[in-house]
Amino acid sequence: MNKRKHNFNPGPATIPHVVLEEAAQSLLEYQGAGMSFAEMSHRSPQVMSVVEEASALVKRLYGLGADFEVIWMQGGASAQLAIAPMNLLDTNRSVAIVNTGFWANKAIKAAQELGRVVVPASSEITRFDHIPQGWHLPADVQYFHLVSNETIDGTQWQEYPDLAVPIVADMTSDFLTRPLPIEKFGLIFASAQKNFGIAGTTCVVIRKDLLEQRQARKIPTIFNYATHVAEHSLYHTAPTFAIYVALLALRWTQAQGGLEEMARRNAQKAALIYAEIDENPLFTGSVRAEDRSVMNACFRINRPELEQKFLDFAAQHDVVGIKGFPTVGGFRASMYNALPLESVQLLVDLMRDFAQQH
Amino acid sequence: MNKRKHNFNPGPATIPHVVLEEAAQSLLEYQGAGMSFAEMSHRSPQVMSVVEEASALVKRLYGLGADFEVIWMQGGASAQLAIAPMNLLDTNRSVAIVNTGFWANKAIKAAQELGRVVVPASSEITRFDHIPQGWHLPADVQYFHLVSNETIDGTQWQEYPDLAVPIVADMTSDFLTRPLPIEKFGLIFASAQKNFGIAGTTCVVIRKDLLEQRQARKIPTIFNYATHVAEHSLYHTAPTFAIYVALLALRWTQAQGGLEEMARRNAQKAALIYAEIDENPLFTGSVRAEDRSVMNACFRINRPELEQKFLDFAAQHDVVGIKGFPTVGGFRASMYNALPLESVQLLVDLMRDFAQQH
Repeated sequence: MNKRKHNFNPGPATIPHVVLEEAAQSLLEYQGAGMSFAEMSHRSPQVMSVVEEASALVKRLYGLGADFEVIWMQGGASAQLAIAPMNLLDTNRSVAIVNTGFWANKAIKAAQELGRVVVPASSEITRFDHIPQGWHLPADVQYFHLVSNETIDGTQWQEYPDLAVPIVADMTSDFLTRPLPIEKFGLIFASAQKNFGIAGTTCVVIRKDLLEQRQARKIPTIFNYATHVAEHSLYHTAPTFAIYVALLALRWTQAQGGLEEMARRNAQKAALIYAEIDENPLFTGSVRAEDRSVMNACFRINRPELEQKFLDFAAQHDVVGIKGFPTVGGFRASMYNALPLESVQLLVDLMRDFAQQH
Repeated sequence: MNKRKHNFNPGPATIPHVVLEEAAQSLLEYQGAGMSFAEMSHRSPQVMSVVEEASALVKRLYGLGADFEVIWMQGGASAQLAIAPMNLLDTNRSVAIVNTGFWANKAIKAAQELGRVVVPASSEITRFDHIPQGWHLPADVQYFHLVSNETIDGTQWQEYPDLAVPIVADMTSDFLTRPLPIEKFGLIFASAQKNFGIAGTTCVVIRKDLLEQRQARKIPTIFNYATHVAEHSLYHTAPTFAIYVALLALRWTQAQGGLEEMARRNAQKAALIYAEIDENPLFTGSVRAEDRSVMNACFRINRPELEQKFLDFAAQHDVVGIKGFPTVGGFRASMYNALPLESVQLLVDLMRDFAQQH
């Protein structure tokens, strides 16, 4: 096996190696059963127990009470951008979405396909370099959708607003990375894989009273959250192996010290790289300091002719995945839970060395 | 590692061991890249190449022309039961579905949530023991949905009807098991995992002209087949590892000799077990001989008090997964592509031994 890369991929992204080792073993044979975990019925005691433990661990890590349900769905966040309004948005009400960037835009478009959307504020005019403040919700708003962390633009809600309506959060890129004021949320969804699992499942946390809401809208049974709550995520053949790897990541998160410890580590990694971005004369951060994402640090090189050279220099030192999203450009260092501090330290050292050389 | 079970699971089901070995290796590290396949971006050259090869292999195995597209979607067949009518059914037309059992019933209910459904025939009155013949389609029917193989009831369309409208086939449990008269089909979907992959992705084969059909219906972008065709299955983060394991199974299928060879082996396995069911005085087949599934042999024991005893006897000899679906009862031996003839031979021997002992 070759040396592991320092993997700054935005997602699918780095996974703890111990998780990969256990997952690979279980793919060959699961706990002496004479078959792979992937060869087991989704209704077998083993698989049911995995799904149950994964849901219980999410509840435990966030300290969720009995008023919340946790389910595992097929598909990713893009599917949830349609499924959430299908389930939650009455035909005579509207959803409010602050336009913070790429994923808020996606949410606006997906919700517009299904119902009424209001956009109380946007940071588009300054290329999504901050999270807008000081906006107000119209009276007919049923819920507020936010993108907790804009993976592509590099902003993050450091505090969630106090609102009269529930928050529905796309938390795909910062789920499990810090404790939450859970009482503000009606629904949270996060698709794998940034901070848990392998791609192919989405964890949905939903406040029970939102399931009981009467809808004018007809929802296909398979896209109705209530279906999956009632059947404990096993209404259909679930993506069993993806949920299993999610469970391994949840156990790892718990064993490391839970969400407080994840938040501590993530803050340490972010402080390290943003300090370098601010001090290094060759680089500039893309986002206002107060709204910078702890997960995805976006920055640019002040001499664009050196951009590819820096990518090559990083790659020579086994640092991969730092190229910015095509529509944004520059660099993006994604630092999810599984990325070690050492990888960030190496990237910072490389930024410093490269600046001294040029 | 313990001895591999003779795994007759209905799905998720047995997977070729060489596929599991290669998948487990790639989960640790993919082709010397210093990272797991699951840690790679869905837009990396490696993952894009896997998706492309998987689609190309489906086309090659079925001999599909340029008039067909192959895409890989998130979710399973239950999602397709809603997504297919969303995409294909105009609001002023109807879909015809012959009620052949559990999955046809699911399709009827899912389509009724979205539009008009006609059921030209049903075998419900005889407990779905055959595929109805001699029915006619009303004039306003836009397409005909059939369940190629009823996984739970144990029937299979041995010949597909000649119709003036395209067939939309749920082929989840007999995809890749025999060559097809492809010209009869407008759309085929098959979710993993029966004959390919691990659970978490669905292969969709679609005739291009069906994508161009004008719809009165508004479809969420994420559930529009055209979205995934245009983006070569990478509109969003695809379930990359599930598609990768699907590719390994497709390569395995091709290397074994393709669909003719799969059909030959499957026919041999089915002939072996059905001969025993018919000859053995202790067991009775649940389905009329001409409509029996080559994939899922459903049968009952004539002395119900021995049912659990036979399950235990089989388990003692490492034969697992033969318990029938709760609503049907009895036994079901699922014999997908990856199940070796030896496993069926062993089950047949056990049926004979058990009958002699009782």
